[in-house]
Amino acid sequence: MAEVFTLHEDPRSGNCYKIRLTAALLGLPLALRRYDIMAGETRTPEFLTGVNANGRIPVLQIGTGKTARYLPESNAACWYLAEGSALIPADRFARADMLRWMFFEQYNHEPNIATLRFWLHFIGEANLSEAQRAQIMPKRIAGQEALGLMDRHLETRDWFVGDGITLADIVLYAYTHVAEAGGFAIGDFTHISAWLHRVASIEGYQSMD
Amino acid sequence: MAEVFTLHEDPRSGNCYKIRLTAALLGLPLALRRYDIMAGETRTPEFLTGVNANGRIPVLQIGTGKTARYLPESNAACWYLAEGSALIPADRFARADMLRWMFFEQYNHEPNIATLRFWLHFIGEANLSEAQRAQIMPKRIAGQEALGLMDRHLETRDWFVGDGITLADIVLYAYTHVAEAGGFAIGDFTHISAWLHRVASIEGYQSMD
Repeated sequence: MAEVFTLHEDPRSGNCYKIRLTAALLGLPLALRRYDIMAGETRTPEFLTGVNANGRIPVLQIGTGKTARYLPESNAACWYLAEGSALIPADRFARADMLRWMFFEQYNHEPNIATLRFWLHFIGEANLSEAQRAQIMPKRIAGQEALGLMDRHLETRDWFVGDGITLADIVLYAYTHVAEAGGFAIGDFTHISAWLHRVASIEGYQSMD
Repeated sequence: MAEVFTLHEDPRSGNCYKIRLTAALLGLPLALRRYDIMAGETRTPEFLTGVNANGRIPVLQIGTGKTARYLPESNAACWYLAEGSALIPADRFARADMLRWMFFEQYNHEPNIATLRFWLHFIGEANLSEAQRAQIMPKRIAGQEALGLMDRHLETRDWFVGDGITLADIVLYAYTHVAEAGGFAIGDFTHISAWLHRVASIEGYQSMD
């Protein structure tokens, strides 16, 4: 029997979009349960007890009712959905190399590129704290470095790992393709721009909104 | 023929230690090539071209000479070494759940707990930039939250995932067991303290220094 998947998400979040895009490419149905993170809906006692003690979305729910299991962390959820498919390479080194880019995404990319989008586009610079404002420039620089590394990597290849799209492309695509909202000039990165177009042309592709 | 592994590392780095601990538990020999990150030895043209364009250690080198392959990102390197062993659960959900904690480690744990150790213990508070100083308190709070989540999780179980040690334990152990150097009072977290002892008692355990 096919598993029933429910995504606990905020549609504005790139981390949630990764999972929707993975499911779309795999042709897996995904029920959506929406939360407004700006209104604190993922910090309620019900959410913390029943869905994710870390108070964050996305969370992939597998099954329903009392036997449901909950998987936080966007990249782990993508992994769960994609196991056994071509989105995870069969070769051992390529598989670890894909995880390399997925960890890079959470460490070097998301905290800079997604955070500046969230701060500047959704919260607004005027509403930031002093500590946040002091972080704009360091995050700008670190985000540019991450994009530069990606651009050089894509200079000689179509996809991050191997000869086809993998989870590495999907998870890096999510916040890269909306990075303009955080003030990053993606058009300056020629190879990234071509790769964004390549991802959006894949059969089964689903846009963020 | 067994693969030859070389770890490009700085012995003070918890991210490097994760890989050494994984290799030790698996009984895999690991040659060490040491760099001083404080002296910029991972930012030289040779390192950027030949080992890791991201200018960071650890990097796991697989093989030697012209056919050598290089794997950055500590958690991806641990994954590569451990594939096929009991350090990665055989169950699909447990495997993704292990990755969940590994992504948590790189997103919620390391940037707070490892960074404060690096800043306060190795660089020294007096030598920090203004932007770094403004980050001490936010990182202190976020680090405490990460430790609180871990402590509550360990209240009802011995290991992060399933019934035995996995990579989730190894990668979280690396910076948790030296978190005092960043000003975190680990003794206040009863369940973490018991778990640290449990990890250090595992057969094949190797200490950081």
